Amino acid sequence: MAGKPPFADIVAGLPASVPFVPPEETERRTGVTINLRLGANESTFGMSPRAWEAMQNAASESHLYGDAHCCELRTELARLHDVKPEHLIFGSGIDELLGLIARAYLNPGDAVTTSLGGYPTFNYHVEGYGGILHKVPYRNGKNDLERLASTAEKTGSKIVYLANPDNPTGTWFTAEELQAFRSRIPDRCLLVLDEAYIEFAPAETGPPIDPEDPGIIRTRTFSKAHGMAGARIGYALAHRDTAAAFEKIRNHFGINRMAQAGALASLKDPGFVRKVVQSVAEGRREYAKLAEELGFSAYPSATNFVAIDVGSAERAAFLRDALWQRGVFVRVPGVPPLNRCLRVSVGTPDERKAFARILRETAEKAMK
Amino acid sequence: MAGKPPFADIVAGLPASVPFVPPEETERRTGVTINLRLGANESTFGMSPRAWEAMQNAASESHLYGDAHCCELRTELARLHDVKPEHLIFGSGIDELLGLIARAYLNPGDAVTTSLGGYPTFNYHVEGYGGILHKVPYRNGKNDLERLASTAEKTGSKIVYLANPDNPTGTWFTAEELQAFRSRIPDRCLLVLDEAYIEFAPAETGPPIDPEDPGIIRTRTFSKAHGMAGARIGYALAHRDTAAAFEKIRNHFGINRMAQAGALASLKDPGFVRKVVQSVAEGRREYAKLAEELGFSAYPSATNFVAIDVGSAERAAFLRDALWQRGVFVRVPGVPPLNRCLRVSVGTPDERKAFARILRETAEKAMK
Repeated sequence: MAGKPPFADIVAGLPASVPFVPPEETERRTGVTINLRLGANESTFGMSPRAWEAMQNAASESHLYGDAHCCELRTELARLHDVKPEHLIFGSGIDELLGLIARAYLNPGDAVTTSLGGYPTFNYHVEGYGGILHKVPYRNGKNDLERLASTAEKTGSKIVYLANPDNPTGTWFTAEELQAFRSRIPDRCLLVLDEAYIEFAPAETGPPIDPEDPGIIRTRTFSKAHGMAGARIGYALAHRDTAAAFEKIRNHFGINRMAQAGALASLKDPGFVRKVVQSVAEGRREYAKLAEELGFSAYPSATNFVAIDVGSAERAAFLRDALWQRGVFVRVPGVPPLNRCLRVSVGTPDERKAFARILRETAEKAMK
Repeated sequence: MAGKPPFADIVAGLPASVPFVPPEETERRTGVTINLRLGANESTFGMSPRAWEAMQNAASESHLYGDAHCCELRTELARLHDVKPEHLIFGSGIDELLGLIARAYLNPGDAVTTSLGGYPTFNYHVEGYGGILHKVPYRNGKNDLERLASTAEKTGSKIVYLANPDNPTGTWFTAEELQAFRSRIPDRCLLVLDEAYIEFAPAETGPPIDPEDPGIIRTRTFSKAHGMAGARIGYALAHRDTAAAFEKIRNHFGINRMAQAGALASLKDPGFVRKVVQSVAEGRREYAKLAEELGFSAYPSATNFVAIDVGSAERAAFLRDALWQRGVFVRVPGVPPLNRCLRVSVGTPDERKAFARILRETAEKAMK
């Protein structure tokens, strides 16, 4: 038998940690079954009945590879965003797109700026391609735009990442604030604007899309408001030259056929997403009231989750574990000061009621 | 507006070519609708009714991310292959796994050995990570095992790739021949054994799986015999340390929920795959007879396609285009001498009849 083939230098040097432990894994480890799955910002409203029907129909064609160009979906999205089809990049979720972005732009050792406590999967991919992360602490509970821009400048970053609305805080900036931030990003630095939660935000949150700006990539997904996380489909809006470069590295036949059919059908049922967004807005208000009632404080949110600051990291960890024992899955961000928060997805009205009841009971014990 | 952010060195240097143009793209370009889709080795037998039902049921849970560990499927596959769950690596098809393999093992400039005319998507990924390909010509219509091993040795290759059964020829080696080849692979060189078509091959084709061998990764898929190409799920069998390294770079939540459910259900319906394999074997014999009747010659095949050598590259290109005009999609490999072949997927009995009729008529014209 031959010896062990050596791994590539970058991969050999990577830590074994992963961005997220899936809830199924924790279920297996603890033996506790989840009844309220509110930790991954999945949309428990499900997807549009039209999307469901389209996916079921597409299941009968699952022996055929999906269209590598996602042509029908591409055409519809181009129409909706008023861009050309060649401004779109598809991936099996934003996670895959973030990996492609890191690969497309980073040489080993290149600097990247993000927020301290920002989306771990972005960091995972940056480090996975040998990038060096510079992390800017949140300021007053929000991404610190000024320091993100100045850190990108100072470190000569190739990429600066911003989620708007933000994960895990749920906070957001207006289009105007974003435009000002965009203009402060140094020349030759790419702004990755992750808009996974944009459908839940006030209308003025996303800056107008300028498909001729080569310095920005905006990522979108069907995993959140469209309720299709398990189908794995997302996309990015970018300059045509940027999109063309991704053709040289992407997994061309990677987007499954059902996801393409479901996403297209969901776009044609905007009323469904509208209703989800409305109910989520109500749920955010309920969570904020609940937090207040329990002596906690909720971050303002323009997403489908609310970060509830329970006062200390210890209490957050205690509550998370206690909730888990009651079959409730929520997450606590890993980095201070966000690790004082329970990040809770906004579920259906019934789920919200059940969560409120269990959190009240659990918090009572925690405060004793 | 900022200037254009520069791409990573490797990506900037890549050509714009892609491994395969999807048939949908050619349909759009030519305006001809495909009636017989026999060019991508999709299984037109479809998938097991049980898999179909499982996928349809899973569609209703599409708002939830799939299990990042594919635990249920992993357990079942480990049982079937008599390995531990930690010997499995999942990907959205072998294509994605080949990309991960290139990334896991290659530093820029590293040598890789493969067959001249072998699977283009493997080459695409190797070059995409800066690897340098050394291509060994086929010999007597088969992969040249001796020269593959000696070239890997001479070039200090980090990876040697072999598809068994082979794509695009359909030819295969026995487990014994494979074992001998394995023992000739130089120390510290990884053998990637692509077994996408293994279900169609004689029982003695795959060497016994040795999960303790760190020098080999074997790739398998649900895209071919299981008829699930559009669902996007494949896996690899490897040493546990190898599999652990992939945890550091893979897209953890990339495998969609329906694919996991469908794959598991398909494994539990082995009778379905058996029937597909039987009908495909009949179809291969029909294609071979058809080829002989037309004065062509068919490569022996242990896959779900047959490479029909029509005598010259010009005639192959002519026939491919003429077939396309009749709504029949087949491929012609890009590299001599394989570019004398039409590679035709084995369809259902009705499809085979229709294909035979159209090929006869088309070939008649070509021979005039």
